[in-house]
Amino acid sequence: MRRIYLDYAATTPVSPEVLRDMLPYFSETFGNADSPHSFGRDAADALDRARRRIAEIAGARHTEIYFTSGGTEANNWAVKGAFKEGVKRGRNRIITSVIEHSSVLSAVSSCGAAVTYLPVGADGTVDPESLELAMDGDVALVSVMAVNNETGAVQPTERLAEIARRGGALFHTDAVQAACFGISRYAAVSDLVTLSAHKLYGPKGIGMLYVRRGTRIGKLIEGGEQERDMRGGTVNVPAAVGFASALSAYDAAREEENERLRALRDIFVSRVLGSGIGAVVNGGERSAPGIVNLRVRGIDDDSLLHMLDLEGVACSAGAACSSGSAEPSHVLLAMGLTESEARSSVRVSMGRSTTESDVSEAAERFVRAAERIISGRKKQ
Amino acid sequence: MRRIYLDYAATTPVSPEVLRDMLPYFSETFGNADSPHSFGRDAADALDRARRRIAEIAGARHTEIYFTSGGTEANNWAVKGAFKEGVKRGRNRIITSVIEHSSVLSAVSSCGAAVTYLPVGADGTVDPESLELAMDGDVALVSVMAVNNETGAVQPTERLAEIARRGGALFHTDAVQAACFGISRYAAVSDLVTLSAHKLYGPKGIGMLYVRRGTRIGKLIEGGEQERDMRGGTVNVPAAVGFASALSAYDAAREEENERLRALRDIFVSRVLGSGIGAVVNGGERSAPGIVNLRVRGIDDDSLLHMLDLEGVACSAGAACSSGSAEPSHVLLAMGLTESEARSSVRVSMGRSTTESDVSEAAERFVRAAERIISGRKKQ
Repeated sequence: MRRIYLDYAATTPVSPEVLRDMLPYFSETFGNADSPHSFGRDAADALDRARRRIAEIAGARHTEIYFTSGGTEANNWAVKGAFKEGVKRGRNRIITSVIEHSSVLSAVSSCGAAVTYLPVGADGTVDPESLELAMDGDVALVSVMAVNNETGAVQPTERLAEIARRGGALFHTDAVQAACFGISRYAAVSDLVTLSAHKLYGPKGIGMLYVRRGTRIGKLIEGGEQERDMRGGTVNVPAAVGFASALSAYDAAREEENERLRALRDIFVSRVLGSGIGAVVNGGERSAPGIVNLRVRGIDDDSLLHMLDLEGVACSAGAACSSGSAEPSHVLLAMGLTESEARSSVRVSMGRSTTESDVSEAAERFVRAAERIISGRKKQ
Repeated sequence: MRRIYLDYAATTPVSPEVLRDMLPYFSETFGNADSPHSFGRDAADALDRARRRIAEIAGARHTEIYFTSGGTEANNWAVKGAFKEGVKRGRNRIITSVIEHSSVLSAVSSCGAAVTYLPVGADGTVDPESLELAMDGDVALVSVMAVNNETGAVQPTERLAEIARRGGALFHTDAVQAACFGISRYAAVSDLVTLSAHKLYGPKGIGMLYVRRGTRIGKLIEGGEQERDMRGGTVNVPAAVGFASALSAYDAAREEENERLRALRDIFVSRVLGSGIGAVVNGGERSAPGIVNLRVRGIDDDSLLHMLDLEGVACSAGAACSSGSAEPSHVLLAMGLTESEARSSVRVSMGRSTTESDVSEAAERFVRAAERIISGRKKQ
């Protein structure tokens, strides 16, 4: 049976062109970018080109781009680093939302800050009004993601950023799932922006934090003077080169690709919803192009996900990062779903290699799997 | 002019076999190891195999191996995590040495601990007696590296570990430069051991922290439940596979290779010392096989390093991680060198591709460069 990968929001394959661009930096131009000799300078030049390429796409200065080991590290750094500095100015509160990625939520809850969690509506988005009401002079940081990774719900980043910064707080956005809308729009309004390469056909093990010039944050990983003395550790040059290559290609194609993914999503959703199995889409209209989160009435556990796996359709119950957890999605619960509704929901996410035939076939298998589960239940 | 790379202690090229082992995990078996479907399980299986392979070499359980983004992250985690837990038991002091890598020193000085710095002798090693005297009931962690990265000086790890643990403190060793002696000897006596892949012909961007079973440390990078809920972030599967492959090959060949490197080092040292330019080796006899740190009497600045670079010999002034710094090496100063002696010293480090012809040629260029500098000085 042909396997169909519909979990691009969890991770993407490295594109062949990106891998080709990375290859010379493993064994040939392998120097430590901090070494004071020609091998080091060759590596440093490649790193510099990668950083400038990313900065250009972000509409930022190359000195505002800091490489990390991924989105999770960047989120930890943004939250803990902003709080550490905030405390020095008498600001000891962080405002975030209930639907953030686990890396933001864990960092927020462990760093010692007072925390305000903004709710979301049934559509999975934060109401800027709630931030307006929560703001006060004690807020060090507002961290609200740009696009939710489980539902694709698009957050009102511009308005949230404006309110946060007007109140003297730093604004951070986890834009890991939002590169489809162009990262420059996030860098334009935020103090701190997180991005990850492996969600956009780049390698795992690299991400970045955009840090607006003049923004002071504490360090998370200390060591030598790498990354303008803000992040220690030998820089992963092949990965940085791959990140730049991937983001370049991704950004150049994104508008066309967004159209294509929207159309595929529509096909999938209309097939499944039109099948009469009682499927419901979780969340509202404003969604990232290739993501849909849905459930089927009458199924109250995770059996659909497992049946889909057996049927060769790879999708997820929410974030892969929390899949070890037996808990239902905190995002769906926050949107007002019941525990069993949340537990039975499935995230389907499409990407570059997804074809119309894939989504048609996947929709067919989805419906068949749901029907089998429901008819099995009725017999019991 | 043929370039000669003698900076293996800064970084090593990824070996072709390691890269070959990594390749399938970029674009083919690309799944997120936490995803609940076949793509995820394939990645998780590869990750599990890599972890078990490393554990076997370390003489450890696979559940004691935690992947990080590199040695610097692992050192930060060990120090800050051990301190965080220590405080809960009323232990708020860290004992470390003056010759640690910048990642340990920065983490120690920023985490809020009271700190005792152990000195080193002229040979660059810590005297266990000094640890004995410094121990007390308030010590959370003793962190002393296994082999110094600038001089190759071999530390008395077994005795230090025994004293630390007898005193109820955790013992951490940064073994990044010590894999030549076999990592199992460090895991056998320590609670926490740091290792990095790119120093042993593996990829950049991955390292590990060995955490002895039952050892409690706080987290550094929080997120999903990856790495047994101790280190968040999508695991870098190709890099983990490469790390295991590299360590395997390295460990299997290390005794033979150590012999070879010792012989090469001896050739280099005897040529340079025998040339009559007034060269002096910094440190003592107990040194890692392929590293030598030396200076030339009458040269009091970093001109030798730059001349060597022009002559196509790539070596370093110490740690690459601190090469952005204008400060002379803290390691050499701690050994009793003057500022100008430290500033003029050069680390030469050999590795897998270094041949006898390389070291002979490098020694010749070294002597020629030194002579030119000295004769230039005399003319002034």
